[in-house]
Amino acid sequence: MRALRALRPRRLLAMAAAPGGSRRGPVLTPESMNPAIRRVEYAVRGPIVVRALELEQELRKGVSKPFTEVIKANIGDAHAMGQQPITFLRQVAALCLCPELMKDSSLPSDAKERARRLLSACGGQSVGSYSASPGVQMVRENVARYIERRDGVPASPDDIFLSTGASDAIVNILKLLVCGSGSSRTGVLIPIPQYPLYSAALAELDAAQVRYYLAEERCWALDVAELRRALDEGRRRCSPRVLCIINPGNPTGQVQSRECIEDVIKFAYEEKLFLMADEVYQDNVYAKGSAFYSFKKVLKEMGPPYSDSVELASFHSISKGYMGECGLRSGYVEVVNLHPEVKAELSKLVSVRLCPPVLGQMVLDTIMDPPKPGDPSYERFQAEKEAVLSALAEKARLTQEIFNRTPGIHCNPVQGAMYSFPRIDLPDGALAAAKEKQQAPDMFFCMRLLEETGICVVPGSGFGQKEGTFHFRMTILPPTDKLKILLEKLSAFYTKFVKEFS
Amino acid sequence: MRALRALRPRRLLAMAAAPGGSRRGPVLTPESMNPAIRRVEYAVRGPIVVRALELEQELRKGVSKPFTEVIKANIGDAHAMGQQPITFLRQVAALCLCPELMKDSSLPSDAKERARRLLSACGGQSVGSYSASPGVQMVRENVARYIERRDGVPASPDDIFLSTGASDAIVNILKLLVCGSGSSRTGVLIPIPQYPLYSAALAELDAAQVRYYLAEERCWALDVAELRRALDEGRRRCSPRVLCIINPGNPTGQVQSRECIEDVIKFAYEEKLFLMADEVYQDNVYAKGSAFYSFKKVLKEMGPPYSDSVELASFHSISKGYMGECGLRSGYVEVVNLHPEVKAELSKLVSVRLCPPVLGQMVLDTIMDPPKPGDPSYERFQAEKEAVLSALAEKARLTQEIFNRTPGIHCNPVQGAMYSFPRIDLPDGALAAAKEKQQAPDMFFCMRLLEETGICVVPGSGFGQKEGTFHFRMTILPPTDKLKILLEKLSAFYTKFVKEFS
Repeated sequence: MRALRALRPRRLLAMAAAPGGSRRGPVLTPESMNPAIRRVEYAVRGPIVVRALELEQELRKGVSKPFTEVIKANIGDAHAMGQQPITFLRQVAALCLCPELMKDSSLPSDAKERARRLLSACGGQSVGSYSASPGVQMVRENVARYIERRDGVPASPDDIFLSTGASDAIVNILKLLVCGSGSSRTGVLIPIPQYPLYSAALAELDAAQVRYYLAEERCWALDVAELRRALDEGRRRCSPRVLCIINPGNPTGQVQSRECIEDVIKFAYEEKLFLMADEVYQDNVYAKGSAFYSFKKVLKEMGPPYSDSVELASFHSISKGYMGECGLRSGYVEVVNLHPEVKAELSKLVSVRLCPPVLGQMVLDTIMDPPKPGDPSYERFQAEKEAVLSALAEKARLTQEIFNRTPGIHCNPVQGAMYSFPRIDLPDGALAAAKEKQQAPDMFFCMRLLEETGICVVPGSGFGQKEGTFHFRMTILPPTDKLKILLEKLSAFYTKFVKEFS
Repeated sequence: MRALRALRPRRLLAMAAAPGGSRRGPVLTPESMNPAIRRVEYAVRGPIVVRALELEQELRKGVSKPFTEVIKANIGDAHAMGQQPITFLRQVAALCLCPELMKDSSLPSDAKERARRLLSACGGQSVGSYSASPGVQMVRENVARYIERRDGVPASPDDIFLSTGASDAIVNILKLLVCGSGSSRTGVLIPIPQYPLYSAALAELDAAQVRYYLAEERCWALDVAELRRALDEGRRRCSPRVLCIINPGNPTGQVQSRECIEDVIKFAYEEKLFLMADEVYQDNVYAKGSAFYSFKKVLKEMGPPYSDSVELASFHSISKGYMGECGLRSGYVEVVNLHPEVKAELSKLVSVRLCPPVLGQMVLDTIMDPPKPGDPSYERFQAEKEAVLSALAEKARLTQEIFNRTPGIHCNPVQGAMYSFPRIDLPDGALAAAKEKQQAPDMFFCMRLLEETGICVVPGSGFGQKEGTFHFRMTILPPTDKLKILLEKLSAFYTKFVKEFS
């Protein structure tokens, strides 16, 4: 009887009408669903973004707010923040979709030539046909040549698997690696702070996080001593066999030195770890004295035994860099020293999803093999690319400068990637108020910031941070003028917030 | 010492050079990798297709073969077989990518108008920005209106989740549903023959297959008595809670009657099963007297208790139908009666992968809301659509007719979808020869067919079939003239094969 009372009227009605009066609740409830999926969290599109979307709708309905616009600085979504797409790659994509545009005289001949070549590599000359599951062969070859030019060491198209954004490839490689339960459960070393795709995928795949901390006081450097500490800790409860690195860092923006990468590779060699190098921000390096070195290059240049035994998967994407084509969902993984039979298993795994979006593959091709000097589109391509990258460099500088002017905000230089991840001192009063609301203190801060200014950033707790420290991640993507206002508004809000809770 | 001898020279060298002489084999080997991934099989792109690709390369190198061309009738890839894309949707997509084409006077005004509206629904007016994770709101609304027109019952955009092809959505729904181990492991009822995405996903997610057989002798009909038999069998070893239906059938081509759908819904209600309805071939119905009824329509029209309690996920895609845009990877799922908190979990799950390809969403929009009478593109759109569908109907008829002329080949009518799945009698000699090669008998047949004729079809064993029966799946997609030659070639090969092994 008590159980019946707890049911809502509509369910009672349904039960009454059921043949034989049998009870028939839903099959799928929060209690009966896959608990691994329940454990998944993804802060970049978490509760704060849900609230931001609600606020946008309220504004549209004419509800009065202390701001006129919600600014989503939560996600690395360049075009949404006004960055213009690179013309050449859009022209090629449009021509691939609509070959009748070949007769449009406003489109340059090299775009037409490229589209023709790409279409000839598609089944039935159509981007509407499936490609081979690891991607169009011609594109894989161009990716290999791009890597060779970048690194100065050989690359093979057979080691390249195109993907639906880098996320897809990252999860596929993790799927191969995770297994076991209890103390033999696969452990995966991830940086803290990390990009929450990693924690989400590990939750879903029921693998163990092994957290190594980046050294905030030294510009988020990666220390092998800390890797060792984390590994020792992990070995007490699981079987760590993967080491993930994000370089340039997300959300932390550091760019690793060549020496650091060598140390990490030696560590992976000695401790028998599979390396996953998330290198999607490889074109986004701004700081003087910083340069991008791929793990593949360093690994190969180190020579044996490293170069021919350490297993590496390196990820790249068209979503970041100067192109910012997130919506097309395209990326790739290069696998190095992967066991041939495991590579065959990877081929099989990707075949189940048929193929990555073919148009994204076409656009990836234009990035891997951009117009060359003398080509009709060369000047425009270069000018557009430089304009984006130099604006990002300026915004990286500006962010650090304005934040560090404000007492209580500590912002490391944004050496690369697209985010700042400043530390904020929060007064005890704010910690108490957050506790009362059952929120993480930085979530409490970010929610207040959103409600009062319309600025949407992601609390550091969504990425992980040292116990007792608080941060937020904010993109550097808004247009320079707007970003300046934003940074000043945010700093002023922070000062007011601290005063309120002190 | 024996272990050392087994190593190849290169590995020995690496070991010798290792600091401290420590052994360092690969982290990831066939033995140490995730066993769930090893168990995955996907026949549509399995060994026979690998061999087909090799043969193509051999032909290109000038190797002499008894054929001049490999014909891939293994996969529902319409454009690859020469089907032309629908012009309107390609125009809209090209305009979305390259808004500077708005000034191209050869493009129709309604395509421009649609592209403008779609772009205004994108962040920064660019298809390069991420959409909301469940898809662009405007597109979700158009999907809901499409479903309402199709079914005559209400649909809500909140229940629509756009996806990277239907496969992506199917796997996401399964992810929510599967859990447990041993006798409480989730069981999923799947038809036999089935589309192997289901078996592959269940292997990966470590859920149990519960196989119900379609009645070949009655045109692949689905019987509730057989569902009950399968369920009873499944309950002895797992916890069945999902029932998958493919309608129109893949690979079997049957179209379910309304009565059958009602019976299935009652069964799902009584036995507390979650329904997954794979309806991606809903536009592909050819047989006189056959019509597509969606599970949603039937469920809602049945009224309570069914309409407000049976949980249903229905899948659709732009890859099939008359558009055949497989390469753009776009589809959706509509969820019905899903627990609100579970729906929130689904929203969270899809957010980890950020969003489905945005350009595919744009194209989905043009299919959900096609040009109307009076619009500049209406006549062309309709003419292209009808041309594709009537050609497919003719090819469905032709396939059945030619196969059934051949003694030993038994082909049910292709009422819908894009495949025939004929049964072939194989002589004992062939079974013995296959056994010797450790191949399934139908794999042996299909491999021989490929080697001798260049025709690539998929053995029935990849889809499942009644013990002791043999089939293959062949698409009806090649151009009519070519298909005719193909069918006759295949029939002649079969007759010769039977003679050889009798």
